Amino acid sequence: MTTTPIIFDTDPGVDDAQAIALILADPAIEVVGMTTTYGNVPVETATSNALLLTELAGQTVPVAQGAARPLSKTPNPFPTFVHGVNGLGDIDLPSPKTQAVDQTAAQFLVEKTKERPGELTLVAVGPLGNLATALQIDPNIVDRVKQVVIMGGSVKQGGNVTPVAEANIYSDPHAAQRVFNAGWPVVMVGLDVTHKTHLSPDRMARIQAAQGELGRVLGESYGFYADFYRKALGIDGCCPHDSCAVAWLKKPELFKTVRGHLNVVTEGLAQGQTVFAPEEATFAEPRWSQTPLIDVCMDIDGDAVSQWIEDTLTT
Amino acid sequence: MTTTPIIFDTDPGVDDAQAIALILADPAIEVVGMTTTYGNVPVETATSNALLLTELAGQTVPVAQGAARPLSKTPNPFPTFVHGVNGLGDIDLPSPKTQAVDQTAAQFLVEKTKERPGELTLVAVGPLGNLATALQIDPNIVDRVKQVVIMGGSVKQGGNVTPVAEANIYSDPHAAQRVFNAGWPVVMVGLDVTHKTHLSPDRMARIQAAQGELGRVLGESYGFYADFYRKALGIDGCCPHDSCAVAWLKKPELFKTVRGHLNVVTEGLAQGQTVFAPEEATFAEPRWSQTPLIDVCMDIDGDAVSQWIEDTLTT
Repeated sequence: MTTTPIIFDTDPGVDDAQAIALILADPAIEVVGMTTTYGNVPVETATSNALLLTELAGQTVPVAQGAARPLSKTPNPFPTFVHGVNGLGDIDLPSPKTQAVDQTAAQFLVEKTKERPGELTLVAVGPLGNLATALQIDPNIVDRVKQVVIMGGSVKQGGNVTPVAEANIYSDPHAAQRVFNAGWPVVMVGLDVTHKTHLSPDRMARIQAAQGELGRVLGESYGFYADFYRKALGIDGCCPHDSCAVAWLKKPELFKTVRGHLNVVTEGLAQGQTVFAPEEATFAEPRWSQTPLIDVCMDIDGDAVSQWIEDTLTT
Repeated sequence: MTTTPIIFDTDPGVDDAQAIALILADPAIEVVGMTTTYGNVPVETATSNALLLTELAGQTVPVAQGAARPLSKTPNPFPTFVHGVNGLGDIDLPSPKTQAVDQTAAQFLVEKTKERPGELTLVAVGPLGNLATALQIDPNIVDRVKQVVIMGGSVKQGGNVTPVAEANIYSDPHAAQRVFNAGWPVVMVGLDVTHKTHLSPDRMARIQAAQGELGRVLGESYGFYADFYRKALGIDGCCPHDSCAVAWLKKPELFKTVRGHLNVVTEGLAQGQTVFAPEEATFAEPRWSQTPLIDVCMDIDGDAVSQWIEDTLTT
């Protein structure tokens, strides 16, 4: 079997936990490591959750802790009304038995890509400070990474933390602008597709039943998270944002992507917005075509992706 | 017949010319005056075109000249590739025989609304500097205006001069932010509806045949303008942007509007973007619900509006 080696950059987070379960369950994905960041929770909580989820999946994966705050902007409050204070819906959680490695997330990214140049895909589903810092300490990393898959941003869908900004990009827009335009191959998996994908209570019940103690954590945290989605978006279920980034890796045929230039608004009213100029669009000012081309997911077969999530976690 | 008295603020412009023909043709609209601004063309050209179009329609309407440049930002180049150098597709035009009144646009707006408090609707289809200046010299004008209908902005549709900004708002974002949030009743008719409305060559041929010398100007300038739309948007016809604002006055049942808070990005990458927070949406930060509520057109029966334009100009 051909496996896809990845490093998963994450701030778990309820939907991060679902995605972590997925990457650990799929035998065709090799999880070389996880790097953690503040975002849905403080970075120490993110690290603890990443370690615990790995243990509950019966696996051993190095976890390297990274960014505790944005590169430049004043931190936003943590979204405890979405993920709970502990990031997993405030359900009872045991303490992890393992520990993070003695490296920063950025160091870990630099070293692993040196060990396996051209092989690793970075799947980043939180604020992008770890990837930005890796680019700061070793700009040549752009030539050693196979691909960067980013859960974040929104083009047509509107935002989820402001009318125009998605949470991960809004959390550190300066990092995001650097990461999107570093020149490595980037795919953006944003709200344009994740808001069209709903993980229903029925599917989660079957996942919970199949996953033992990890299933309990996924199922109970889902309950808290789905409450938020019911109130905020009026849907029965949740948007499995971070799992969509994993789905893109495994099932790109379920997505419609558009190639173009993307810039992040770093200051002002639209801070955190991802401004996308499709390659074929023409604008009077040349500035809209001066950044590297990236791929942006604009549509998805959300039902098929939800089915794939369930299948992967129940078989 | 109940008539709707309006002042039409305009920068003709091919689609402005169509809208001017409409308001002069419709016996249920009383055109109290026109005010002109730079935008599609320099303000002197806008004034000349407004006078000429009025003469060709066989009518007499006072025209007051206004803004020659933005309030604050550096002017953009004129979009000669859309409207031509003369604003009407560079077709042959006679000189107007009449002249503008000896008042600025802002003075005209202030005085006419004093003469008829509570009666007048301002229909503004260019950059919003004249309305902003009227608010500057007489803030009480907000209480004397019945309604302000603005052609400009974009919420979900993306922009036409940048990936996120519409031309009128981008031309003077500082004026737009003032006008949208002055506290008077505002309706925004933006690209979310005008890009769903196409005026076909067949319809324009029938309009041209019915309108004599004015029809020649409308038909020939349409040819130039439609060339741009064919290349830029791949449609056969043009978007009759400014006529949509008039249509909203006469046929509101053909539109879907959403009430909410709107802010204009005045600086930076997203300059000129209209950021809309629907009244029923909730965001963590209170700043998204602190401006006055306005109505934003989000959907339209574009075919019915095109039919109404044709009917009004052929009967």
